[in-house]
Amino acid sequence: MRVFVTGAAGFIGSNMVDRLLSTGHSVVGFDNMSTGQQRFLQSAANHPQFIFHKADLLDRKNLSQAMEGAELVVHFAANADVRFGTDHPRKDLDQNTIATWNVLEAMREQGCKRIVFSSTGSVYGEPNVFPTPETCPFPIQTSFYGASKLAAEGLIHAYCEGFGLQGYIFRFVSILGERYTHGHVFDFYQQLAEHPEHLHVLGNGHQKKSYLYVQDCIAAILTAIDRADGRVNIFNLGTDEYCEVNDSIAWICEHLGLHPKLTYSGGDRGWVGDSPFILLDCSRIRALGWRPRLGIREAVLATIKFVSADAAAVKTEL
Amino acid sequence: MRVFVTGAAGFIGSNMVDRLLSTGHSVVGFDNMSTGQQRFLQSAANHPQFIFHKADLLDRKNLSQAMEGAELVVHFAANADVRFGTDHPRKDLDQNTIATWNVLEAMREQGCKRIVFSSTGSVYGEPNVFPTPETCPFPIQTSFYGASKLAAEGLIHAYCEGFGLQGYIFRFVSILGERYTHGHVFDFYQQLAEHPEHLHVLGNGHQKKSYLYVQDCIAAILTAIDRADGRVNIFNLGTDEYCEVNDSIAWICEHLGLHPKLTYSGGDRGWVGDSPFILLDCSRIRALGWRPRLGIREAVLATIKFVSADAAAVKTEL
Repeated sequence: MRVFVTGAAGFIGSNMVDRLLSTGHSVVGFDNMSTGQQRFLQSAANHPQFIFHKADLLDRKNLSQAMEGAELVVHFAANADVRFGTDHPRKDLDQNTIATWNVLEAMREQGCKRIVFSSTGSVYGEPNVFPTPETCPFPIQTSFYGASKLAAEGLIHAYCEGFGLQGYIFRFVSILGERYTHGHVFDFYQQLAEHPEHLHVLGNGHQKKSYLYVQDCIAAILTAIDRADGRVNIFNLGTDEYCEVNDSIAWICEHLGLHPKLTYSGGDRGWVGDSPFILLDCSRIRALGWRPRLGIREAVLATIKFVSADAAAVKTEL
Repeated sequence: MRVFVTGAAGFIGSNMVDRLLSTGHSVVGFDNMSTGQQRFLQSAANHPQFIFHKADLLDRKNLSQAMEGAELVVHFAANADVRFGTDHPRKDLDQNTIATWNVLEAMREQGCKRIVFSSTGSVYGEPNVFPTPETCPFPIQTSFYGASKLAAEGLIHAYCEGFGLQGYIFRFVSILGERYTHGHVFDFYQQLAEHPEHLHVLGNGHQKKSYLYVQDCIAAILTAIDRADGRVNIFNLGTDEYCEVNDSIAWICEHLGLHPKLTYSGGDRGWVGDSPFILLDCSRIRALGWRPRLGIREAVLATIKFVSADAAAVKTEL
């Protein structure tokens, strides 16, 4: 199968590219390299079944041409800067909503009928049902990121209904693992690399968060497109557990052998739009036979190992 | 209070303008006149507290300047062509989603803190709870119109959360009454004016629809902004009844004294994205003391009276 992957040089995208290539698919990667990393595509670049386009999703003509012949679109490109929505509210609209519209229009032009979309548990805002199922009460958006992803979901639904596309929408918890490039493990690592004796934490450290290992995330997506066949297929993706930010800090510090003094910005949210509790009900995807292989602690440890090694490698290259 | 009304020359907008002026408010009307009608603002135009800007919401500079000094924004401007979403999917994105983003950005620039937004019961897609409450299960979008309005709702939520705005979101059933310019009563009237002996109906005529009289709609909005004070206030607006398309046809034909032969396109939906059953649970707005004055039959009759008289008046002018 020929698969078109947006955000192909990103954290989850590049892992997906490698997985698809290793299972015999041909892959067209698309990335504007705004946050993508050339080094994540090093192995793919040597693969005969891989083509890469450095271009922007807001450039519709290029996008449509690059998509020619694709049977499946995996749309991962996004502004994933959840925390900074209020600094540039147009960015989420452009990169998450309008970019998705462009992808859907290109699919219509090219006759491509199936789309995988990386949505987010943030579309649930601050739910009052835990674990939160896909069918929870109609939520209120608490972040620009969530709002822009919800808008993209709606567009995908409408294209499926109006133009006969088939949509696979995945509402992720935070994803961890190799090639992870931003988020709390990264921020904590950077702080500790600069000043190992001190760690500043946004919020009170008691925010309850869920995480999923990137390879488990990819396995879930591949399971769903193989086994679900509705017009619009929506799946939560996460483990069945959560941890507090303080737990994650303890695992990271233990791994690094550090005992920093912790200070907290306070409050039960780290920033405007932060969610104090994320725990998704993933029984829908589990019913298809998928299970995560790593728990949250293992995923955090895999991530801090990668981040440390990657930082060392990048430093050596400089 | 100085109120900024978008879509001021439209059906609901011009009725709102008149109501606001008659209750002592000053009004700045904004409309690109793409579907607005000059004649709906005839009485407002003579009022000393009314200013009108003919401009487009996609022109952000003009929009922001026009909004200066407004304490409340009533954002009604929209592409309301529910049926033709698949003909031009960009139109809903531009006129409903991006235009709303522009309104919110202008509010931020001008320090205006309160917004009333005309959303739609279409955001519920095809629910399986009737009557459908605001908190029904997270829906799937079945129309470009619904998807674009949902996206706008999410943006409003995020602006309320991120920038301290206060939002009033109203999910309307179809609105009927004086100055009504499009929809099934209009389509049926036009057909019958052309060929009184024959009426063609989209779908099987058994679609169950809800309608609300425009003055009841406006009264509900004014009640809500007076009595609700949450950050994001969401209200369904409708009556507690529904009718079949065939009922509406019978009332219209009786009023016109016609007995046309009915033909049906068939199926339980009139078009892609049409909803076979709309009935909203409006107990939330009723709990604030609001009640509709007209039932669906009276609203249909008020509308066919207006449409007939208006067509006659327009004809006389030509």
